[in-house]
Amino acid sequence: MFLQIGERINSSRKTIARALDAKDESFIRKEASIQKAAGAGMLDVNCAFNSKDEALDMEWAVRIVQSETGLPLSIDSPDPEAVEAGLRIHKGKALINSITLEKSKAEAILPLVKKYGARVIILTMDEGGMPSDAVQRLELAGKAAEMIKEHGISRDDIFIDPLVRAISSEPRQGTEVIDSVKLIKSKYNLKTTCGLSNVSFGLPERSTLNAVFLAMMLSAGLDAAILDPTNKKIRAVLKASEALLGRDEYCKGYLKSYRDGLLV
Amino acid sequence: MFLQIGERINSSRKTIARALDAKDESFIRKEASIQKAAGAGMLDVNCAFNSKDEALDMEWAVRIVQSETGLPLSIDSPDPEAVEAGLRIHKGKALINSITLEKSKAEAILPLVKKYGARVIILTMDEGGMPSDAVQRLELAGKAAEMIKEHGISRDDIFIDPLVRAISSEPRQGTEVIDSVKLIKSKYNLKTTCGLSNVSFGLPERSTLNAVFLAMMLSAGLDAAILDPTNKKIRAVLKASEALLGRDEYCKGYLKSYRDGLLV
Repeated sequence: MFLQIGERINSSRKTIARALDAKDESFIRKEASIQKAAGAGMLDVNCAFNSKDEALDMEWAVRIVQSETGLPLSIDSPDPEAVEAGLRIHKGKALINSITLEKSKAEAILPLVKKYGARVIILTMDEGGMPSDAVQRLELAGKAAEMIKEHGISRDDIFIDPLVRAISSEPRQGTEVIDSVKLIKSKYNLKTTCGLSNVSFGLPERSTLNAVFLAMMLSAGLDAAILDPTNKKIRAVLKASEALLGRDEYCKGYLKSYRDGLLV
Repeated sequence: MFLQIGERINSSRKTIARALDAKDESFIRKEASIQKAAGAGMLDVNCAFNSKDEALDMEWAVRIVQSETGLPLSIDSPDPEAVEAGLRIHKGKALINSITLEKSKAEAILPLVKKYGARVIILTMDEGGMPSDAVQRLELAGKAAEMIKEHGISRDDIFIDPLVRAISSEPRQGTEVIDSVKLIKSKYNLKTTCGLSNVSFGLPERSTLNAVFLAMMLSAGLDAAILDPTNKKIRAVLKASEALLGRDEYCKGYLKSYRDGLLV
């Protein structure tokens, strides 16, 4: 089943940064519960922007969000200390968002993945920089599979993120990312995820582009995505896609969404 | 470039059957011009339902629609006489919609394709019936390529239609059709088309399913589709898909659609 990772609790949003700073529990609880209600199976928690003490904020947010929803969380931080603060208090299997294949970054985080029995998103990027086509992304996914093996981490515990880039500046990147998901699934059968909204950066009516790109990525085999599960277009595309891809028995989920007025 | 074949001038629609019967020229002209304005590169003309003289109606409709739009037409009839009546008066390169691989049907039409320098849609279906998976569709596409060679028709002049079926009764058929387009493109590099709206038969909010399915089929390599180019969701998905698939330089088409308020 496709995993929706709710993106809304992110300190790059001003309202979230303010709520984290003020320890506004009810605001964070509401942002958590609306995403669960909309279908998120996991919630991303990011406290990195403008935080006075990121590790402390992360610990607080993980506790609040899990007590509200009971969902597993995606611990989203560039700082290994904040990551571990989140993992320490997290109940169940957490996801770390994210590492690259750059040695210094990977080696700070992979031992934590192992220690806490967590999962991790691995971006297809190493010291050589960002990949420019589907085949480079495939090769980097293969390198990721090797790297986690050395750390005793299971293939089931990683998600490859092929790095979605903005089509406004790099028009070929939409197709290259879609093709990379097909290749990574067929060659390595690793789980894949992405930050959907990067694709539409710099363009208007972003949710239209994000939703159409999601349909294409689902059809390519994408397993998870970091997205806003409360967005109407995203919801409609997800429900329609599940029915179209034969993952919605008797189209029950689609029909329920129709009755709930969620498809328009 | 993706070819939109406008589906609106079809006598299964009551208003069209009435206009054909009454020879209501202005009504047919309007249905033609709104589809051209919305982006259709070709218009389907079907006079088969409740016609007193289908060949006569076809001749009349082809003349009116071409004089209004100057577009090439898709001559849509099960009756070889009506097809030839349309071809005789058609200016430029017509498309015949459609034949199966059943000998009796193919042999009535393929000589007309050759005689009039037309193109033809070939459904992946023969005496053995409807295909049930992607590989059967691929094999039938290969058979189509053989068959037209025997008639001296160029590969550039055919479109393979892999037969879209309703997911409400056959949930696997969405995926099988998408996979068949990928296979037909990669193995034979034949042009593909489909009747998009069959996928949503029997379900509510059909345009949502049709539009999401279009995104998936475009990403699989679909070259053309018979659709309603005036439908808002179809338009938005087409514009977003062209940008996402790198077929819209500087996202010019997408940005124009945004300014024209067509993306919501």
